[in-house]
Amino acid sequence: MEAYLDNSATTRCSQRVLQIVHKTMDIDYGNPSSLHKKGMESEKYVKNAAACIAKTLKVSEKEIYFTSGGTESNNLAVIGAAMANRRSGRRLVTTQIEHPSVQNAMAFLEGQGFEIIALPVDGSGRLSLDALRGAVNHETILVSIMQVNNEVGSVQPLKEASDIIHEQNPKTLIHVDAVQSYGKMHIRPKKLGIDMLSASGHKIHAPKGVGFLYIKEKTKIKPILFGGGQQLGLRSGTHNVPGIAALGEAACEAYENIEAKIEHMYSLRDRLITGLSQMEGTVINGSLGHDSAPHIVNASVTGIRSEVLLHALEERDIYVSAGSACSSHKQTASGTLLAMHIDPALLESAVRFSFSSHTQESEIDYTISALEEIIPRLRRYARF
Amino acid sequence: MEAYLDNSATTRCSQRVLQIVHKTMDIDYGNPSSLHKKGMESEKYVKNAAACIAKTLKVSEKEIYFTSGGTESNNLAVIGAAMANRRSGRRLVTTQIEHPSVQNAMAFLEGQGFEIIALPVDGSGRLSLDALRGAVNHETILVSIMQVNNEVGSVQPLKEASDIIHEQNPKTLIHVDAVQSYGKMHIRPKKLGIDMLSASGHKIHAPKGVGFLYIKEKTKIKPILFGGGQQLGLRSGTHNVPGIAALGEAACEAYENIEAKIEHMYSLRDRLITGLSQMEGTVINGSLGHDSAPHIVNASVTGIRSEVLLHALEERDIYVSAGSACSSHKQTASGTLLAMHIDPALLESAVRFSFSSHTQESEIDYTISALEEIIPRLRRYARF
Repeated sequence: MEAYLDNSATTRCSQRVLQIVHKTMDIDYGNPSSLHKKGMESEKYVKNAAACIAKTLKVSEKEIYFTSGGTESNNLAVIGAAMANRRSGRRLVTTQIEHPSVQNAMAFLEGQGFEIIALPVDGSGRLSLDALRGAVNHETILVSIMQVNNEVGSVQPLKEASDIIHEQNPKTLIHVDAVQSYGKMHIRPKKLGIDMLSASGHKIHAPKGVGFLYIKEKTKIKPILFGGGQQLGLRSGTHNVPGIAALGEAACEAYENIEAKIEHMYSLRDRLITGLSQMEGTVINGSLGHDSAPHIVNASVTGIRSEVLLHALEERDIYVSAGSACSSHKQTASGTLLAMHIDPALLESAVRFSFSSHTQESEIDYTISALEEIIPRLRRYARF
Repeated sequence: MEAYLDNSATTRCSQRVLQIVHKTMDIDYGNPSSLHKKGMESEKYVKNAAACIAKTLKVSEKEIYFTSGGTESNNLAVIGAAMANRRSGRRLVTTQIEHPSVQNAMAFLEGQGFEIIALPVDGSGRLSLDALRGAVNHETILVSIMQVNNEVGSVQPLKEASDIIHEQNPKTLIHVDAVQSYGKMHIRPKKLGIDMLSASGHKIHAPKGVGFLYIKEKTKIKPILFGGGQQLGLRSGTHNVPGIAALGEAACEAYENIEAKIEHMYSLRDRLITGLSQMEGTVINGSLGHDSAPHIVNASVTGIRSEVLLHALEERDIYVSAGSACSSHKQTASGTLLAMHIDPALLESAVRFSFSSHTQESEIDYTISALEEIIPRLRRYARF
């Protein structure tokens, strides 16, 4: 038995994705910029993918730009919007629990003379709307907020946030990092009143190396990569046709019967939380309810370091994460949990379980019984 | 019969590439940043790919950084090196025939206060070494030169160039855009005395959306994408494992028996040039000899516009390019041919034929007979 509960780090590609990638590498392999029919065939995949994605967001396909992944999407949104609007103001607002690709893009911009305000969050990982109201003024050109936190699954109140932002300054652009939410919930950028939205392929069963950025028509933004002028000059470089086609396919797939998928993931989540809650000294970090994302559970098993538990589970082919996988082997304490001011004793023992719609109930049950066996044994030897 | 002679635009993926992509999407799909064994399995592909590529260049695998393709590699090299060394000087030197991903990165830097010098080339598309000598001074922090021109196949005298550059200023960094040369010839960055070298996967039978940048150890360079700190902080973002593994595999494959492959491509080239030369009013742009790259032939068929010939060939399943495919459907005259000062009458009728080691002699013969039939017919109706 194997339980892959690290779907927020990355997912296995779906069968439909495997097929379309193979086809675009082996048969329809043209360059979309070529004038001949091999180019046009391949361009169709790009257009279809944009149409698929646009449909899931209820936006125009012209508003979808393809990138090399979530990191580039977030960088393009944050740096591209800041640079294009620097004459209107210098203040950028974000939260203390963003992904490093937003945080470090902001840090870069701070070095370029921008002022960065990182909003605090409460104990469940939700941003303070009062703090947001205070931070947005006539100088604020951009607010970047993630929709679902990658470590604890907290969901930000985007509609309330965008209303407040627009009350304070109707010109402020709003970017949403939806890398962990896209494909896991309905997202309507137009209804939410947001201007840009990032997503990544490999979190939704498409391959690594591709993502998209939704950019509302007429949004002022500058490119961060320069070249042949593809994608209206905003993202140069030969289109990654296999990746883009795969992302379109995965997007379609994710939103087919999404209600049933969400329900399935919530039932897995509830099942795991119930199991964990019955184990002594186990604490769930973040909200237990359905106000949190359906696919992420963050728990601290007191007295056992994250990595120790991770490796003990790994021996039984159960894959989880100690913090997030995005920080490239760094063993520092989680920024999200720190910002949530959780008990320091829980910080070093936090583990993330993350599902996808492909995850089976049996994987959860297997994980719970493994934990019931492992935890008492590890506690006996732990010197914390 | 089909003749795909647009390999400098993009190539079909090889069988070995198809297999490794499938495996890394379906089985070894972990995130290399994950601490568990699925992460480590996937990290192995990245290390193997770096080792494969390093071996082909005779450099250390630690000097290979993966990107989303040639455009990003060129941008990272040019912008990253300029930004990291701006305190040492403001002059950047390049040529008039670079790919847009170098030209437009330079244009961006010009807007940031750098001085750009674009060196002229001669009638065969080779840069003027005298002009180079004159352009490099104590203020010159970077010289960026492409190895093989994407439109006419001219090969730059890199060793002579790097000697001159180092004579003038030993601290000047040298970047080489090897997107069209990597996998088509032996390249030894250490012998050539260069600091950075860009390559792209989809020009050598790997998929689109991946490339690498060789960066000599201790070269001062700043990242252009910010995030989780992958690749020593120089290129954040989850590794594109399928793309990277494929690029490694394709690199190995390209350099297996490369002498025979080069010879094969030169024989195709000679055959096509001989065929073309026998057609009335047909002119080869650039050098006819083996001082030019083995896989590119640029020819003007006087009296027939490039696109007209392209589409007439396409009807017979022969795929060529009008200029380069990198300029995203732009119908402007070729910058390379303009810089070479070729006869204006030839500019609008230039067509590029490009091969790979997979190209068959029969494809060349089929193309020659098609041209022999098409050209007189088109000339009859042409109103140029």
